[in-house]
Amino acid sequence: MSLRILATGGTFDKRYDPIAGTLGFARTHLHVLLRQARIEGAATVQELMQVDSLDMTDAHRRQVLEACAASPEDRIVVIHGTDTLVDTARVLGEARLPRTIVLTGAMVPVDLADSDALFNLGFAAGCARVLPHGVHVAMNAQVFAWDAVRKNRALGVFEPVHATQA
Amino acid sequence: MSLRILATGGTFDKRYDPIAGTLGFARTHLHVLLRQARIEGAATVQELMQVDSLDMTDAHRRQVLEACAASPEDRIVVIHGTDTLVDTARVLGEARLPRTIVLTGAMVPVDLADSDALFNLGFAAGCARVLPHGVHVAMNAQVFAWDAVRKNRALGVFEPVHATQA
Amino acid sequence: MSLRILATGGTFDKRYDPIAGTLGFARTHLHVLLRQARIEGAATVQELMQVDSLDMTDAHRRQVLEACAASPEDRIVVIHGTDTLVDTARVLGEARLPRTIVLTGAMVPVDLADSDALFNLGFAAGCARVLPHGVHVAMNAQVFAWDAVRKNRALGVFEPVHATQA
Amino acid sequence: MSLRILATGGTFDKRYDPIAGTLGFARTHLHVLLRQARIEGAATVQELMQVDSLDMTDAHRRQVLEACAASPEDRIVVIHGTDTLVDTARVLGEARLPRTIVLTGAMVPVDLADSDALFNLGFAAGCARVLPHGVHVAMNAQVFAWDAVRKNRALGVFEPVHATQA
Repeated sequence: MSLRILATGGTFDKRYDPIAGTLGFARTHLHVLLRQARIEGAATVQELMQVDSLDMTDAHRRQVLEACAASPEDRIVVIHGTDTLVDTARVLGEARLPRTIVLTGAMVPVDLADSDALFNLGFAAGCARVLPHGVHVAMNAQVFAWDAVRKNRALGVFEPVHATQA
Repeated sequence: MSLRILATGGTFDKRYDPIAGTLGFARTHLHVLLRQARIEGAATVQELMQVDSLDMTDAHRRQVLEACAASPEDRIVVIHGTDTLVDTARVLGEARLPRTIVLTGAMVPVDLADSDALFNLGFAAGCARVLPHGVHVAMNAQVFAWDAVRKNRALGVFEPVHATQA
Repeated sequence: MSLRILATGGTFDKRYDPIAGTLGFARTHLHVLLRQARIEGAATVQELMQVDSLDMTDAHRRQVLEACAASPEDRIVVIHGTDTLVDTARVLGEARLPRTIVLTGAMVPVDLADSDALFNLGFAAGCARVLPHGVHVAMNAQVFAWDAVRKNRALGVFEPVHATQA
Repeated sequence: MSLRILATGGTFDKRYDPIAGTLGFARTHLHVLLRQARIEGAATVQELMQVDSLDMTDAHRRQVLEACAASPEDRIVVIHGTDTLVDTARVLGEARLPRTIVLTGAMVPVDLADSDALFNLGFAAGCARVLPHGVHVAMNAQVFAWDAVRKNRALGVFEPVHATQA
């Protein structure tokens, strides 16, 4: 009955480097977030990589797919950079695994006081608990099928793609 | 397609009073949280009351029920103190409204650095987006039917009530 | 050249207990705060007690006095509840130790998002670095001699006591 | 008896841009920080510019100097990027104004959960309250004369310059 949470990096998990003065990557924040959410027993974190989603390669996406296929839990949340989240959703969606997979991310890194990351993690976990098998994108308090969503980069929000546009 | 979020108070929404040196109530934090979660357009906040759930009366619960019945949105999250959350869930559940109602709360007030409130709000919103009509309790990254859950006060977690105990 | 920081509790160091639903005491936050302030090498924390300053006894104050007298560093910050901070300042002031002692506290516990604790710690540390020997109260970005200050409880601020009132 | 706080930008005041995904500048956070520190009446904020200190020109430094000379308060804190903070301190120091000027900054932007900014602001304010006229650098819970300090960029700390190196 546990959830699996796969960490791949993205804005969600970026970490400030005080010497370099830039946002980069170190280890995932997810263990700390589960403790804060008081759900350490309800979810298992698996850190696959920590990359900006613009730097994600086909090999990275295959690694995510393999982790989903190998997951002992059939309810999975994938933390992902928003820029290519829909691309990874497509790779997962086309594989038609017998799993409920929900991808989410954040527009503001979790270390920032005003981050949307913890809300999005909760929202995705709620969707993962309830949705049937399939691949879904959960952002902006909305849930989309993997083949019916795109990121509007100018606004920084996810929006539905209508059939005529697909 | 919007969510309705009903604020009733509870630990989730407690606010520190620097002069009194105690946690009490003022206005709900939900408007600020929706801005942080970047979903201001996706949910409507309705502040019903701001009370400790131990101080909730039958009149308060009737007010929650009436707000659910009158809601133009059929997907509703109720923010509630955890101590009597299950009691209010029962009042709502027995009314069998044609609504998806998800109750949640927090063990740590949202103003505290280590609060579970934002995660729980996200989790409840995810459940409310996806679940069919009915009354549900969403806590600790789990979702329960209104008549199959209780709060374990010693541990501060919600747990299933098995049929033989019901 | 190091500072000594004595922890006695007070609102500054209160900690939320999720099961009891109240603010109480556990261990001091000062080690974490020094790491955040990036000054772990510049100050030594000594935890004397963790009490509400309304519960401070003469024995507690003697313990603070003895810790100041025994301190290898001659620049000392005392973290104290604000309600009886001035009383402890008097005990320390009348002892006329060859030390620079600066007492401070907070109106909002450090765990709260909107706490004045970290600012006050910094302000008191700045005063302790620069002031000559003597006992001082540092609150509200002002510094007072130990015998020329009182807390205005209605406003929650410290204010000067004029000579005619002393 | 009020302090003047001059905002020039620097890491202290950087702000995350969710659309660009980078740290940049908007308005200073100082008004919000004074409210959090509960000292709105004790200090006046003057926003001169919001720039990375690597982008500071001679014209920018002249503007800081002119603001210090024109300040009705003779106790001044300057919030500045750390990379060229010492250069601006020299411009101010050589002008020998009848003012107490304390420069500080931060290694971690104030919006980050783990920022040193609020501590440093408090520390600099404490020094500015107590020090005589002159120009001082307050970082890492230490205070330096303007002509006896340098930034160690590899470690991200300020350290004394000994006479033989000056």
